[in-house]
Amino acid sequence: LLNKRITAIAFEFIQDKAGTYPVIRAMSEIAGNTSMLLAAEYMSHPEYGRGKMLGGFSGISPTEVVILGAGTVGEYAARAALGMGAFVKIFDNSVYKLRRLQNNLNTRIYTSMMQPRNLLTALRTADVVIGAVHSSYGRTPCIITEDMIRQMKEGAVIIDVSIDQGGCFETSRLTDHKNPVFKMHGVTHYCVPNIASKVPHTASYALSNFLTPILLKIGEQGGIDSVLRSDFGVRQGVYLFNGVSTNKFLSDTFHLPFQDINLLMAAFH
Amino acid sequence: LLNKRITAIAFEFIQDKAGTYPVIRAMSEIAGNTSMLLAAEYMSHPEYGRGKMLGGFSGISPTEVVILGAGTVGEYAARAALGMGAFVKIFDNSVYKLRRLQNNLNTRIYTSMMQPRNLLTALRTADVVIGAVHSSYGRTPCIITEDMIRQMKEGAVIIDVSIDQGGCFETSRLTDHKNPVFKMHGVTHYCVPNIASKVPHTASYALSNFLTPILLKIGEQGGIDSVLRSDFGVRQGVYLFNGVSTNKFLSDTFHLPFQDINLLMAAFH
Amino acid sequence: LLNKRITAIAFEFIQDKAGTYPVIRAMSEIAGNTSMLLAAEYMSHPEYGRGKMLGGFSGISPTEVVILGAGTVGEYAARAALGMGAFVKIFDNSVYKLRRLQNNLNTRIYTSMMQPRNLLTALRTADVVIGAVHSSYGRTPCIITEDMIRQMKEGAVIIDVSIDQGGCFETSRLTDHKNPVFKMHGVTHYCVPNIASKVPHTASYALSNFLTPILLKIGEQGGIDSVLRSDFGVRQGVYLFNGVSTNKFLSDTFHLPFQDINLLMAAFH
Amino acid sequence: LLNKRITAIAFEFIQDKAGTYPVIRAMSEIAGNTSMLLAAEYMSHPEYGRGKMLGGFSGISPTEVVILGAGTVGEYAARAALGMGAFVKIFDNSVYKLRRLQNNLNTRIYTSMMQPRNLLTALRTADVVIGAVHSSYGRTPCIITEDMIRQMKEGAVIIDVSIDQGGCFETSRLTDHKNPVFKMHGVTHYCVPNIASKVPHTASYALSNFLTPILLKIGEQGGIDSVLRSDFGVRQGVYLFNGVSTNKFLSDTFHLPFQDINLLMAAFH
Amino acid sequence: LLNKRITAIAFEFIQDKAGTYPVIRAMSEIAGNTSMLLAAEYMSHPEYGRGKMLGGFSGISPTEVVILGAGTVGEYAARAALGMGAFVKIFDNSVYKLRRLQNNLNTRIYTSMMQPRNLLTALRTADVVIGAVHSSYGRTPCIITEDMIRQMKEGAVIIDVSIDQGGCFETSRLTDHKNPVFKMHGVTHYCVPNIASKVPHTASYALSNFLTPILLKIGEQGGIDSVLRSDFGVRQGVYLFNGVSTNKFLSDTFHLPFQDINLLMAAFH
Amino acid sequence: LLNKRITAIAFEFIQDKAGTYPVIRAMSEIAGNTSMLLAAEYMSHPEYGRGKMLGGFSGISPTEVVILGAGTVGEYAARAALGMGAFVKIFDNSVYKLRRLQNNLNTRIYTSMMQPRNLLTALRTADVVIGAVHSSYGRTPCIITEDMIRQMKEGAVIIDVSIDQGGCFETSRLTDHKNPVFKMHGVTHYCVPNIASKVPHTASYALSNFLTPILLKIGEQGGIDSVLRSDFGVRQGVYLFNGVSTNKFLSDTFHLPFQDINLLMAAFH
Repeated sequence: LLNKRITAIAFEFIQDKAGTYPVIRAMSEIAGNTSMLLAAEYMSHPEYGRGKMLGGFSGISPTEVVILGAGTVGEYAARAALGMGAFVKIFDNSVYKLRRLQNNLNTRIYTSMMQPRNLLTALRTADVVIGAVHSSYGRTPCIITEDMIRQMKEGAVIIDVSIDQGGCFETSRLTDHKNPVFKMHGVTHYCVPNIASKVPHTASYALSNFLTPILLKIGEQGGIDSVLRSDFGVRQGVYLFNGVSTNKFLSDTFHLPFQDINLLMAAFH
Repeated sequence: LLNKRITAIAFEFIQDKAGTYPVIRAMSEIAGNTSMLLAAEYMSHPEYGRGKMLGGFSGISPTEVVILGAGTVGEYAARAALGMGAFVKIFDNSVYKLRRLQNNLNTRIYTSMMQPRNLLTALRTADVVIGAVHSSYGRTPCIITEDMIRQMKEGAVIIDVSIDQGGCFETSRLTDHKNPVFKMHGVTHYCVPNIASKVPHTASYALSNFLTPILLKIGEQGGIDSVLRSDFGVRQGVYLFNGVSTNKFLSDTFHLPFQDINLLMAAFH
Repeated sequence: LLNKRITAIAFEFIQDKAGTYPVIRAMSEIAGNTSMLLAAEYMSHPEYGRGKMLGGFSGISPTEVVILGAGTVGEYAARAALGMGAFVKIFDNSVYKLRRLQNNLNTRIYTSMMQPRNLLTALRTADVVIGAVHSSYGRTPCIITEDMIRQMKEGAVIIDVSIDQGGCFETSRLTDHKNPVFKMHGVTHYCVPNIASKVPHTASYALSNFLTPILLKIGEQGGIDSVLRSDFGVRQGVYLFNGVSTNKFLSDTFHLPFQDINLLMAAFH
Repeated sequence: LLNKRITAIAFEFIQDKAGTYPVIRAMSEIAGNTSMLLAAEYMSHPEYGRGKMLGGFSGISPTEVVILGAGTVGEYAARAALGMGAFVKIFDNSVYKLRRLQNNLNTRIYTSMMQPRNLLTALRTADVVIGAVHSSYGRTPCIITEDMIRQMKEGAVIIDVSIDQGGCFETSRLTDHKNPVFKMHGVTHYCVPNIASKVPHTASYALSNFLTPILLKIGEQGGIDSVLRSDFGVRQGVYLFNGVSTNKFLSDTFHLPFQDINLLMAAFH
Repeated sequence: LLNKRITAIAFEFIQDKAGTYPVIRAMSEIAGNTSMLLAAEYMSHPEYGRGKMLGGFSGISPTEVVILGAGTVGEYAARAALGMGAFVKIFDNSVYKLRRLQNNLNTRIYTSMMQPRNLLTALRTADVVIGAVHSSYGRTPCIITEDMIRQMKEGAVIIDVSIDQGGCFETSRLTDHKNPVFKMHGVTHYCVPNIASKVPHTASYALSNFLTPILLKIGEQGGIDSVLRSDFGVRQGVYLFNGVSTNKFLSDTFHLPFQDINLLMAAFH
Repeated sequence: LLNKRITAIAFEFIQDKAGTYPVIRAMSEIAGNTSMLLAAEYMSHPEYGRGKMLGGFSGISPTEVVILGAGTVGEYAARAALGMGAFVKIFDNSVYKLRRLQNNLNTRIYTSMMQPRNLLTALRTADVVIGAVHSSYGRTPCIITEDMIRQMKEGAVIIDVSIDQGGCFETSRLTDHKNPVFKMHGVTHYCVPNIASKVPHTASYALSNFLTPILLKIGEQGGIDSVLRSDFGVRQGVYLFNGVSTNKFLSDTFHLPFQDINLLMAAFH
């Protein structure tokens, strides 16, 4: 790429006007919803779960779903679970995120800081645990220890959406679409990374929703350079500009000369 | 009354078109709402509760409220608790009542049959327990044993609305507005009967809402007899008709001759 | 059974106070929720569906779910679908049922009478179709013809919950848990009868919720005869009383002498 | 104005703390609500619509309303339509705006990017189409071609709120309060600009709500200059300061010397 | 009709399974919704209202809508008003009806018994008053006296849906579609009877939704007589059976021999 | 502190990522909820209120609650009041805040600018008035004059949460937990400052939720200095850095030399 003087853009780093990452957001919405459907599938499985239905019905104490992380994945997992009538507890270390989630869900739900004592109480009666902790850099912290897993109910189901970043359960280990789950201490673990790949059609659709307007803009404005100059958000996705690295992390890792893309663009004016 | 050949009506037995008892219903709405306000008051009390606020806020695990009984009292207690952000669990032995409650509350809440194991799990983490079990005849069954109370949290608050019918906690004993609460096994008990009497103004208003149309009707139709003939619901409230007992229970208890009011009215035609 | 002079009760015919059948109701709630989870599973299947996710996200036109029948199955299928963000259209021939459903769902949804033209328009763009038509006697009517199926989208998913009564799609044919689906005209059909059997744990729990109070009552009242005399609802489930058939349909089919259970009970007094 | 050395403020350019334009926002809320009331009026008109009622009732497939644009106009049009029970589809090119709208409406509605195929499918069955696309500069893009209009239902109603900026339907042409509508290809078009002027009383009230605090502040602080120095938002509305143009667009158009208002104010300190 | 020995059915007297009148119910839903759209139209009218918009926006005190009667008309008028953001007060003399309405609307609204003092307080600040009182026989009672109208705001709008039964305002007098409104004491009165006729297309659709299944049944069962025997609800609509009056009221008025339709049908078996 | 060269942090000035003050926010949530519970307590008091219940029931016109200020206190007071079924009117001078509140509450409520005429109309029928106006500096403005109080209903209850900043009622004067209320012009005034201190347990919990992560971070990063350098929000709470005043207000008041903490931190890099 360097030799061919390519301008390369990583779409997951493109930002929208509000400074968020639309691709990550879209994939997280999908991952959140899918994680709950997977949980329902394994709960009803005769071997892995125990023939239980995810949901809540009058007179039967509802499925207890514990969600770790109040970001987009957690929000959409919670929406699906609430829709089926489950009882949802959400843990996060940011009061700010918990409050925003509560506003988005339009219903006052059970939220709590990630205090070990509260977490353990919740895990003991949980039927489903979703790991949806996102780390902005490096590995997700391990939040649930093996000892806590041991105290969970036989037949409970864990979906570790954080597995892409190493997972947030001590007992998590990478699985794949062929052998997606394993049991440990009586608890079923689903640890396939990139959960959105389970629904490739929907995921592609979401991506093209986002990329098409950018491609159209490039066409209308006569080339990528012009778009990069005018659109701050797209510019943030550039990691190679005419073969020059504009990504600090890559430059550091591969010892490439680095240039700041914003300065490069300012020079163009 | 017998000698004066009085026609006497007990307003709590008057029925509306749907066959329900409007006075009991109105008093139950008030009792349900009031019970939750009392729970809030005692939870925040420095001695009886422990300076806690009833409700739920982002990041603080919400107050857990257990409600025994899914009738009108339970419904209005649940409404108030949900409004303040508390987490509500409702127990009843009738799936039918739990389903109706869920429909009325417009939100899928935690409901369960009154199974001792589920009850105990819920009591152990409860901050507030409302006893709202109604028995259609005789004493309410004792649902929560002293042993279960012992396992509750220090500083929890019990409001036994069922105390009018004997109470549904083994540890309940009648109190009054002067000394409304006592502590036992670290749990505060509020056992004042006729809870609606705490808000006499509102209760009177509710009663007159219901009685005024009947009085007007008596005036318009030229007397009580005419109303009793035409209005099946009012008729059900009659326990003395011209000095004759029309209430089976009273007749049996006091060895009075009994006449069926419906037959008496049919004879008038 | 006849020789042993058994008293036999079919629990699906037991009625509650409101005259509805609680067992059928409970199984229908489970079937409705499960049908939507199955639809999600097959929609995301690489072969049967096309890797799509059931749900709705900003900017992607949501999954279109058509539900035939506005009874309990339809209601709980709709709840789950709405919870995941799908767009739901419900068809029924009873305005009364559609109105009740709308009240229960707390949201104004798309409802329509089963007019062929409206149905076809809805089918053409549908991703999921749930057959939840219940016939009070005999076979469910065939509502969707093979010709209508032909006009559906490639990769759409049909869950025929009515298959227990013969199915409401012309193309439906019985399948089982081993080979649950087949494709026809590009549309995946799921036609396993008794869908609640997919989640046996939950279904058993729901049944015991309902049967335990009856068994307790039998114990308390000293025998089944006493309960049958006092409880009109349980009595409706009796099809053999001391070896005498009390079910008209069975008597007619097997040429057994028939006795009306209500008359038998009245005689006991 | 120049000669008199006037300081002139255009209130539609005044910003609030969040950087939005409160006057435009208020007028857009009004326009959105009003557009739906106009749609209802013309749908029920014997000549223009066909005696239909905007709304949704059990058993009748609900009115289909397509809204182009997910800004404030679109939001308030959607609120009114949903309130009457209509079925609403919203199109926009910004996933971000669609998501925000969905959060504000508290209900998951049908949203989609403006893809021609999806748009055409929606238009074919639409009863009402609201054009609520806002262009931040220049003419709104023409989104619906004459050919698409031809495929709409006879008697459908178009309200082009974007007509102030040229309209977003190819067939739109300016109308006025006297002859507000015309029919083309069987579709009724309402293209009166400045829709909020239909309800002058409410619009004036909304304006004075916004202007009164500014006037009071001017009074308290002893003059407009002091307010302009301290209040960044009001300052953005200034286009003439003591007779000097502070609006780039005006200066360019009329060849007036231009001064940046922020720099002018900084100089005052 | 008598001579031709016709069997005549009045569709507004046909009952459904729940004992309600589906035609009256459908027309009432339409009338309720339409009444609010008319109120919006006249409120925004430059002469009759005062250019106000029906609705509610942040910072502007919302339109106050008073609805007299908590039946179906009142419910659908309230739904439309709440959807536009208006503030709704509902009055009825039946606590039972108010409670049911509140459950159906899914939001706790302002309800009150029809006490003159409360009514007057509400009228003084009302922008719109809907008269939706239904009398099961004879004329609707006159609830709002001319003196109360005098105390209303200039420019308020009254829609008297009860005008079919004489109206519930002392100042109401019948108008027609040509001159639908008049002003009195500064208040605009709309008193066109049969409001559903404003939207004939929707009204016809609702009627045919209801009548088609009956006609199909007549076809399938080989004639009207068979349907009348088996369907209790349809039977209630019959007022002439083979030329014999089966309607008590008609028989009394026109001195026709009367026969009870239920007895006639029983004889057929 | 100066001599000991202490670094001192005022936690109420620490900011989160969104630039808001989390401690003030948390205390305001608690104050809002508590204020409504206090209002309920005094309304039902036989002497201060008049035995009324705060709330709303079918057929009884609901409690009218007026809230001055649409900030966090106002929001949580409104949530609690709505939950109990009261009718809420909110006044604020910022349309922006009213709009945000409405979005957060998920229900269109009565909002209005603080216009004296509208305020007086609302006060005349109010049962409860909450003063929740926050002034960013200095004393809160006095919004309700003694003359307006005189026109309020006998037995109404005022909770002046703004009393910490001087109160927003002309008649307010500081009270304490021992004698929390007084009556004036028939209106009960509750003017205890720092309302959150009524529920110390919950308030402490909320504070430690917020402080624990900061203390952990200090531990992990090896000292407060490192945290101050990297965390902009915590830095804003510093008023003494190694004994040097970094708070402009304190420096001015006590004539201490002042240093800007941001510049100090920048120097450290």
